[in-house]
Amino acid sequence: MPDAFKKIGLIGRGRHEGSVDTLQSLLRLLNTRELEVLVEPRLAKLLNTKDVRQADRDEIGEHCDLAVVVGGDGSMLSAARTMAGYKVPVLGVNRGRLGFLTDISPDEIDIKVAEVLDGHYEKENRFLLDVAVMRNGEVIGRADALNDTVVNSGTSAQMIEFELYVNETFVYRQRADGLIISTPTGSTAYSLSGGGPIMHPSLDAVVLVPMFPHTLTSRPIVVDGNSEIRIDIAASNSIHPPVTCDGQVNMTARPGDSVHVYKKPHQLILIHPLGHSFYASCRDKLGWSNSLVK
Amino acid sequence: MPDAFKKIGLIGRGRHEGSVDTLQSLLRLLNTRELEVLVEPRLAKLLNTKDVRQADRDEIGEHCDLAVVVGGDGSMLSAARTMAGYKVPVLGVNRGRLGFLTDISPDEIDIKVAEVLDGHYEKENRFLLDVAVMRNGEVIGRADALNDTVVNSGTSAQMIEFELYVNETFVYRQRADGLIISTPTGSTAYSLSGGGPIMHPSLDAVVLVPMFPHTLTSRPIVVDGNSEIRIDIAASNSIHPPVTCDGQVNMTARPGDSVHVYKKPHQLILIHPLGHSFYASCRDKLGWSNSLVK
Amino acid sequence: MPDAFKKIGLIGRGRHEGSVDTLQSLLRLLNTRELEVLVEPRLAKLLNTKDVRQADRDEIGEHCDLAVVVGGDGSMLSAARTMAGYKVPVLGVNRGRLGFLTDISPDEIDIKVAEVLDGHYEKENRFLLDVAVMRNGEVIGRADALNDTVVNSGTSAQMIEFELYVNETFVYRQRADGLIISTPTGSTAYSLSGGGPIMHPSLDAVVLVPMFPHTLTSRPIVVDGNSEIRIDIAASNSIHPPVTCDGQVNMTARPGDSVHVYKKPHQLILIHPLGHSFYASCRDKLGWSNSLVK
Amino acid sequence: MPDAFKKIGLIGRGRHEGSVDTLQSLLRLLNTRELEVLVEPRLAKLLNTKDVRQADRDEIGEHCDLAVVVGGDGSMLSAARTMAGYKVPVLGVNRGRLGFLTDISPDEIDIKVAEVLDGHYEKENRFLLDVAVMRNGEVIGRADALNDTVVNSGTSAQMIEFELYVNETFVYRQRADGLIISTPTGSTAYSLSGGGPIMHPSLDAVVLVPMFPHTLTSRPIVVDGNSEIRIDIAASNSIHPPVTCDGQVNMTARPGDSVHVYKKPHQLILIHPLGHSFYASCRDKLGWSNSLVK
Repeated sequence: MPDAFKKIGLIGRGRHEGSVDTLQSLLRLLNTRELEVLVEPRLAKLLNTKDVRQADRDEIGEHCDLAVVVGGDGSMLSAARTMAGYKVPVLGVNRGRLGFLTDISPDEIDIKVAEVLDGHYEKENRFLLDVAVMRNGEVIGRADALNDTVVNSGTSAQMIEFELYVNETFVYRQRADGLIISTPTGSTAYSLSGGGPIMHPSLDAVVLVPMFPHTLTSRPIVVDGNSEIRIDIAASNSIHPPVTCDGQVNMTARPGDSVHVYKKPHQLILIHPLGHSFYASCRDKLGWSNSLVK
Repeated sequence: MPDAFKKIGLIGRGRHEGSVDTLQSLLRLLNTRELEVLVEPRLAKLLNTKDVRQADRDEIGEHCDLAVVVGGDGSMLSAARTMAGYKVPVLGVNRGRLGFLTDISPDEIDIKVAEVLDGHYEKENRFLLDVAVMRNGEVIGRADALNDTVVNSGTSAQMIEFELYVNETFVYRQRADGLIISTPTGSTAYSLSGGGPIMHPSLDAVVLVPMFPHTLTSRPIVVDGNSEIRIDIAASNSIHPPVTCDGQVNMTARPGDSVHVYKKPHQLILIHPLGHSFYASCRDKLGWSNSLVK
Repeated sequence: MPDAFKKIGLIGRGRHEGSVDTLQSLLRLLNTRELEVLVEPRLAKLLNTKDVRQADRDEIGEHCDLAVVVGGDGSMLSAARTMAGYKVPVLGVNRGRLGFLTDISPDEIDIKVAEVLDGHYEKENRFLLDVAVMRNGEVIGRADALNDTVVNSGTSAQMIEFELYVNETFVYRQRADGLIISTPTGSTAYSLSGGGPIMHPSLDAVVLVPMFPHTLTSRPIVVDGNSEIRIDIAASNSIHPPVTCDGQVNMTARPGDSVHVYKKPHQLILIHPLGHSFYASCRDKLGWSNSLVK
Repeated sequence: MPDAFKKIGLIGRGRHEGSVDTLQSLLRLLNTRELEVLVEPRLAKLLNTKDVRQADRDEIGEHCDLAVVVGGDGSMLSAARTMAGYKVPVLGVNRGRLGFLTDISPDEIDIKVAEVLDGHYEKENRFLLDVAVMRNGEVIGRADALNDTVVNSGTSAQMIEFELYVNETFVYRQRADGLIISTPTGSTAYSLSGGGPIMHPSLDAVVLVPMFPHTLTSRPIVVDGNSEIRIDIAASNSIHPPVTCDGQVNMTARPGDSVHVYKKPHQLILIHPLGHSFYASCRDKLGWSNSLVK
């Protein structure tokens, strides 16, 4: 049986209706079990009580053996990028519709979170991308991505021209709105809207999805997860393409810069209640029961 | 037999290599025939001669019965938007690879342009879109498009939420990177990269192509060319979406604004040499001879 | 106000659970109003009564001024092809999920069918395709299609090679699994699964969708509804491709044959309850409310 | 340096123009080097000489340390399936356009085949699929695939209903024309026409591509290459779906049967001249230089 958890961190943005109720349910459960609990300051403020011990994310990362994230996939992505670095497992609780990363709804807290705390859970590793923007041989920006990194023109009505290299091998020179580089975790998010395939979370692979490519035969390419991917922004561009990670604008590249994308050495440890199924999430979230004709 | 042309305007950006040679070939031909010729100032400057009569686009529109555009599809789009208003037919001459709008290469000028001047040509009408951004019942920006108009977030890593109406009928509320509204003329340009269908130029229709839509079942929708299309930018957006026409940033909308798109009353008259075929252009430009296996 | 209907035909396959109840509800309503009713023999048999006047489809077509079809889109397609020839308007009643062609569910019969009979309805015309297989200048097979006609290899693991002509103009020579030719009515059926666009029912256009084309740049092409479309089955094929209309195998072509597709002169008259919206059907049937993220 | 080859088998269908010249060039080169050569009977017949030693494929598999295949991707697929079982490396020589599996054109034989024989080459492993049709617990048909296996209705105008399982986990129940299961090697063939991603040959993965699925949100799914894939043909089907491997009809399933797909234990060893690049093949074969606009 997997380890039971003793020190729990509560993380989230808490800006959704019902977050307070969810947090109180969680706290009640954790207190009943006399577990040590650290709460992010903004959540503590929401709870409007002095009876919780506050800690920022890095403290939670250092001290806890489980982080419970309250919120949607957005909160989860942000928390996951931090917790992965501390090797702290992450469990997601979401109000409303479940996401691909959050498995527990507020009304299941008493049963499902309890089970997890009892050591009845599944553990899954998800890798992250290490994204670096290089200029004249120097790293001028660096960020992590659990879902995807996107290099695009950042400007309406303009394309960027770039060259793609995988493991130092030239793939193509392309004019397009941009390029999405997605992990299996991100393959059900933005990449999917752009025509990328669904990749099972256990797959050690990365998909490169061209955005509105000029070359109509340019298709998503799936490469090994350990590949070194490099996008050379052509010097001929007149724009400064933003490089985003998980949908956050993190860095701005210039013509002549290179964007380097590698797998990070540490992985996110994702906790699921027993009986979790990736394909069940797909059926639910993608409406696979919606047939054209019945 | 169609009319022969007597007063010719020369239009273009002239920034490509070989433009001077092309212009000189054209002038030689037109002078031999003792036709009246008006030349855009920047082309006249390129020609480095005082022997041409200069005129800006509006003068060319008012006085000429044919405008010859030297340049690629970009030059053509710009010239076409102006000439359509003056009902002046347009003929395209392009160096290098032929475009969907330009049929004559520089080395064919003496034969093909001569034929056109003799009255041996085909005439084709292409409609344009009238795009207006409305705020509180007032038009705050207006522009024309021969290819397409695009409403998008304008910002990397952000989506817009909008509602689409066709002839006052609600179509859907959508979260996406944006929406492309394309004429048949534009259906082989940006819209095609986004998964839109090819539409024959004679078709009286407009296609609405969602860009990276959240709803995976959202597909390109083809509606009658006389439809009134309205995109309501949801008030909940935090961004100011740019509205582009033919790839030029023309206007910036705000949350709560509406973008109205109608067919313009006047059309572009496009002149082709005899024997022109839209499908032949497709075969050439889209590489329809490139089979996977041969 | 549109005409009220006096002579009603009941059509359907009646093989679904609940069909008897639906038929009885309809009959009750029609009898209350003392309307003349003709019933297809197989439906009459289902009703197990001698109190109905039986008539086959052609009799219904000749004598009735409205045909009510009980069943799904399949029944509707079949009935529509016949009734269109007699210019008899058609109204669809479907148990379970509504289709794109059937608007009334059994529990709405008393209200919505009553309204239609009172003359409160909308009328919509849908065109059909006339599909002929030609061999050595002779028609060797002919059929109608409301949704689509498909020419394909008919055999697993084989492709056909064909040439496509629109209005006598060569489009391309293609190797593919086949080609779908769809009306706007069919654009939400098989064609949509193959990547074709949604076309509003009022659009006078036809879409040509290549099936698994070898040429990756081959895309759906939308042409005017009055186009003459011809598919020449290359003489080099070794297979005998079936030609289907609305998913029924109707004809078998041979290498060297041509398939000719035209718009039929008469159209289907489709009756909708007031307030019908094509886009509402799309939202319902295509799950346009299923967003990736909420 | 890799091994030099001593015993060479010549394989192919020899039905293309120029095959005799190609074979003679190869024989000349091999004889000059005094290598042992075994020739397939039909190629020997083509050569019209008694000076070659004939051997069927199994003998070639048992005795040779290199098989040279003369022909296109079709010949290569067939030869590869056999040679993989004998662990004999395979080198492809193709007249005309190069394929994804054949790297050497006839006019390069003297240089490139010579280099390979000298031991200057690259070795690449490609895995195959083991495809079994099961009925009532018994294997009723079994075949290998290097590119792909396709389960489809086999009949025009009909769909099959099936359930997909990966590693005993339910994925979905689907109505569609069929399902393609492709290796990375097959990802640039039929799967690509169906919207599947390109997968680098080194990737240990399999892609599942639904063919014309009723559920519009059904997308290609990439799973680990070691997955056990099972397709249960629903008992409700009225058709007998053919199961093809590499485009050959091998087996016919019945309603209630299951198709099991696993990775085969032995792999194809593919020989490339030095400097081979998968992406260069893509650029060449997929026309990645064909931009919409230049």
